[in-house]
Amino acid sequence: MLILLDKVTSGKDFKELARYLDNRGIEFFVWKDGMNRFVGMAGTLPQEDLERFPFIERVIEDYPPEIERLAEKRIEIKGRTISRDSFTVIAGPCTIDSREELYRTATALKELGIDFLRGGAYKLRSSPHSYQGIGKEGLLYMKEICTELDLVSVSEIISIEDLPLMLEYIDILTVGTRNMQNYRLLSALGETSKPVILKRGMACSIKEWVLASEYIARGGNKQIILCERGIRTFENSTRNTLDISAVPIVKKMTPYPVIIDPSHSSGRRELIKPLAWAAAGAGADGLIIECHHRPDRAKCDAQQKIDITQLKEILEKLPQITQLWSKKF
Amino acid sequence: MLILLDKVTSGKDFKELARYLDNRGIEFFVWKDGMNRFVGMAGTLPQEDLERFPFIERVIEDYPPEIERLAEKRIEIKGRTISRDSFTVIAGPCTIDSREELYRTATALKELGIDFLRGGAYKLRSSPHSYQGIGKEGLLYMKEICTELDLVSVSEIISIEDLPLMLEYIDILTVGTRNMQNYRLLSALGETSKPVILKRGMACSIKEWVLASEYIARGGNKQIILCERGIRTFENSTRNTLDISAVPIVKKMTPYPVIIDPSHSSGRRELIKPLAWAAAGAGADGLIIECHHRPDRAKCDAQQKIDITQLKEILEKLPQITQLWSKKF
Amino acid sequence: MLILLDKVTSGKDFKELARYLDNRGIEFFVWKDGMNRFVGMAGTLPQEDLERFPFIERVIEDYPPEIERLAEKRIEIKGRTISRDSFTVIAGPCTIDSREELYRTATALKELGIDFLRGGAYKLRSSPHSYQGIGKEGLLYMKEICTELDLVSVSEIISIEDLPLMLEYIDILTVGTRNMQNYRLLSALGETSKPVILKRGMACSIKEWVLASEYIARGGNKQIILCERGIRTFENSTRNTLDISAVPIVKKMTPYPVIIDPSHSSGRRELIKPLAWAAAGAGADGLIIECHHRPDRAKCDAQQKIDITQLKEILEKLPQITQLWSKKF
Amino acid sequence: MLILLDKVTSGKDFKELARYLDNRGIEFFVWKDGMNRFVGMAGTLPQEDLERFPFIERVIEDYPPEIERLAEKRIEIKGRTISRDSFTVIAGPCTIDSREELYRTATALKELGIDFLRGGAYKLRSSPHSYQGIGKEGLLYMKEICTELDLVSVSEIISIEDLPLMLEYIDILTVGTRNMQNYRLLSALGETSKPVILKRGMACSIKEWVLASEYIARGGNKQIILCERGIRTFENSTRNTLDISAVPIVKKMTPYPVIIDPSHSSGRRELIKPLAWAAAGAGADGLIIECHHRPDRAKCDAQQKIDITQLKEILEKLPQITQLWSKKF
Repeated sequence: MLILLDKVTSGKDFKELARYLDNRGIEFFVWKDGMNRFVGMAGTLPQEDLERFPFIERVIEDYPPEIERLAEKRIEIKGRTISRDSFTVIAGPCTIDSREELYRTATALKELGIDFLRGGAYKLRSSPHSYQGIGKEGLLYMKEICTELDLVSVSEIISIEDLPLMLEYIDILTVGTRNMQNYRLLSALGETSKPVILKRGMACSIKEWVLASEYIARGGNKQIILCERGIRTFENSTRNTLDISAVPIVKKMTPYPVIIDPSHSSGRRELIKPLAWAAAGAGADGLIIECHHRPDRAKCDAQQKIDITQLKEILEKLPQITQLWSKKF
Repeated sequence: MLILLDKVTSGKDFKELARYLDNRGIEFFVWKDGMNRFVGMAGTLPQEDLERFPFIERVIEDYPPEIERLAEKRIEIKGRTISRDSFTVIAGPCTIDSREELYRTATALKELGIDFLRGGAYKLRSSPHSYQGIGKEGLLYMKEICTELDLVSVSEIISIEDLPLMLEYIDILTVGTRNMQNYRLLSALGETSKPVILKRGMACSIKEWVLASEYIARGGNKQIILCERGIRTFENSTRNTLDISAVPIVKKMTPYPVIIDPSHSSGRRELIKPLAWAAAGAGADGLIIECHHRPDRAKCDAQQKIDITQLKEILEKLPQITQLWSKKF
Repeated sequence: MLILLDKVTSGKDFKELARYLDNRGIEFFVWKDGMNRFVGMAGTLPQEDLERFPFIERVIEDYPPEIERLAEKRIEIKGRTISRDSFTVIAGPCTIDSREELYRTATALKELGIDFLRGGAYKLRSSPHSYQGIGKEGLLYMKEICTELDLVSVSEIISIEDLPLMLEYIDILTVGTRNMQNYRLLSALGETSKPVILKRGMACSIKEWVLASEYIARGGNKQIILCERGIRTFENSTRNTLDISAVPIVKKMTPYPVIIDPSHSSGRRELIKPLAWAAAGAGADGLIIECHHRPDRAKCDAQQKIDITQLKEILEKLPQITQLWSKKF
Repeated sequence: MLILLDKVTSGKDFKELARYLDNRGIEFFVWKDGMNRFVGMAGTLPQEDLERFPFIERVIEDYPPEIERLAEKRIEIKGRTISRDSFTVIAGPCTIDSREELYRTATALKELGIDFLRGGAYKLRSSPHSYQGIGKEGLLYMKEICTELDLVSVSEIISIEDLPLMLEYIDILTVGTRNMQNYRLLSALGETSKPVILKRGMACSIKEWVLASEYIARGGNKQIILCERGIRTFENSTRNTLDISAVPIVKKMTPYPVIIDPSHSSGRRELIKPLAWAAAGAGADGLIIECHHRPDRAKCDAQQKIDITQLKEILEKLPQITQLWSKKF
């Protein structure tokens, strides 16, 4: 349920409502659109309860057009824009192997017209005995290569302690699926001025994901990109189950660009093309794809990486789909 | 794992292998392609075990191109073809309300160029107190209207007892999600010559779904269309979670056309367009959509039905996507 | 939400309410307790809507003691009683291998003091190539052996066509997980006078399960036993995830005995004891356990079967737990 | 699969194996038992691959007794022991409201004979607008009260930055479900000498949970208690689905005590008793229960808290169950 508060609602009144919802275990979030303040909640209040709060101006059923009036966010970075009017492709290796390998992949992507280079320096792995990433060295490579080739760098922050370092070296910070509910980290990112890609927690509902974005936004940083990367289900033909329906739903509930990660959701190279095209069909605003100039030599997750030729094939025909949604690409 | 059997493998040898797999709890299925017989299984046998069966010609890793050589199925019905070379749209009300309402919807769909009319006469409902469908009368309406307008009729069979009646009145029989594991029904359908749409069980894995199709196929009826309609997960923003990745996977594993039901998977009218386009992007071979000329008057599931205008808007732009997969539409 | 209807509510009034709920997609079920008629529903109606139905006497919040007043069901069969005052153990092979094997298991169980023999004659298997059961012959063995040893026979009905045969040979019919939503079958069982064990669908919510029992009950047969046997989740260390919390919940929502199947839920022999004791701890009214006098020779699911010695060990100490719930055992 | 390495396996050899498993995407963990080193892995290696590593002494099928030889861990703290030979009850409010409320609850628990007081000072909440806990002040109350009453204090650490503070004030640190994959935090805890309760991630498999414990253990801190608190599934009658089968499984896979949280898993007060008894039946080594001297005044999650009288009723009869597993209580 979405409710619109009276423009003159006091902080005290709002706190009363917040306490009331909290006591009932109802999760909620708040949106401001100019003078308008909306409260969205997971659940419906009975009429009698609503009447207890005279400052509720009206109930807006089922997240309708009103929330779409919220100014859609445009993220500007190094002369590029990520927004709902365009289709953004972020590509690169999940893990940085070496400076040379990264450089080769980066130049090949640049030639394909891609502006955003992803590369992981730190890795969160289920087993402590698995490869944990190249570390700080990788951040340095990202910075040097992205400066030289005029690319925007994208990399995952895995712990709040790394924030100063990440801010110095990386242009767009990714919060991975295991950290979506690391609220201290999200709050800290809300104090920065860097764009943040917030991946969905693999067992988090859409509502929890949207609420998590509020931890960033309330600090003042609204340069948020939401990334659907698959949820955990009983199906094990794929690494996760890509929840493609999340794209149109989250675009209704928030003003942020929504992108898809077909690599982690499927874990299978041969599914990248159909899932990338499906994402575009669903109206997604972009993709983040694992790509490597020689996937079979990659240190990690080789089976879900595509090579440059495969990426080229995917991208060539994408505009036919993205233009259905009036997107530049 | 997929294995190819020696062309001269005897029935006794095959039974030995089957018993062996069965004892280990390994589900498997069998494909014939001309003289070649393949056994696909959920799991991998250690080398030592494979060596016990000298009639295994070789192991084919990870369902590769070999299985694609299997002749793709083309389903011919009333002068139309459902296949992987085209994109088929099946539309109509989930439940038949009355002859007049059905007629109006059918004529409107016909004008849009749609050849396949769905309409439910019998309904499976969680509660015995919910509306259970119009019954036999509905089948009669379907037959009359489809004959008059030259449409192919599509309707769900909910119990094996209804088979003679359904065969008399309906062109394509649908097996719903709750019956995907009703193996007696599937076997009975395998004895008929009617095309069957086999919907995925809402909690069934892709492998179980493919295995279920084998119950139909081994009776001799290979006119099978597989329909992904969403699986049950923790996410409750949608009625079910559409498993879009199932499209390319099932197309690799079977020779059948694979279609998507965006209506039951989402349960939300405003998601039909993005999901329909996502399906086309993923390479699906068609859609089955709930559509009603006046959705708000429908007796059942009004909130997931679209009207004719909305359907038209979805279909107009679809060819831009389907042609990426070289499909006629 | 549970509501109590005015004692003089007419059929027409009730239908109006039913249609109203149906239109909103709200599942509901009906309970009669003497002159009182309750409607339980999945969801809450706003006050304003409730006021539209003057024959609603009052709203009972959250399924409270009122529903417990419903007379608890006692199922009497061949001189034994299955009820909430006692703890019932049903044991035997999932699948009947041969008359001799069944006889040996049955006599061993009899010696342990067990009165209920399970044995499957027909099997529902994911793959058509898996073993499908011994068929009618097995029913005959069950009847002969149970008559000779004075045991109550329990066997699964897999299709409505088998009903006459099953009624002739078997004392208690089981509806398996794949048939929980086979509403035609449930309705047919409602017309009989045989006790029915209704297993939970592996992807069905507790509410859907309770609603399914209504399909049986409204035909007049209230000799229902509900059996939790695990649900499908992402966890794959066990075959299914035993939802132990379902025991106290379903006991609140219905008047039927609730039992647990630790064999199918876990799929692992070494888990049977801890799960059986956990079931007793949670207040379950019994167990249905796969047991075989020589498990490793069983044709099917050997790894989840225990032998007689193991069963004996489980049962010996059970009374210490069941007496906490004042159950005879 | 579990393998035993040759006692003289070099670090270089082990790294080679680790890299090999990593490349294949196979998660693994390592156990040392005196001179023996075991590698457990999620998956099975084909014979031919095993032969590549001559330092693999032998393959141990399906985690058998060998791993049980690992010395079971006994956690000693303030004169109490948490181990597999006893049954430990930890109780108290999820969230500390005020010094006085906490004191009242603590004294009442002390009178019941409970030695472990839980109390949350910091809270992780899905919505930034929900109550976030009393903070440092709460830690101070815990320390004072537990010192005065001679109780062991238990509280959740929500971020690595709080570690010095938590170490100063709290006896046993809890890692909550949202932090189970916060590997930096786990590694930091591995460097301390405080016992750690590691709750299972709500969407994490048992294997991932056991692997996460390795992040703590490899730092040298093996004072680990594993806590099952429910997983996320489609069922929404309970807040989460308590995976009771995890108890015997994890006790086989690790040497740590395993406890159950019936409060967060169910979210419903009336389920605490049956679930607590079920936990004891399954062989759990203890419970962590939300308890408040006046639950309805609690600031958070009132509906899942029990009061002192209810707790007393649960505990009085527990020894009848725990003695079946030869546990002191």
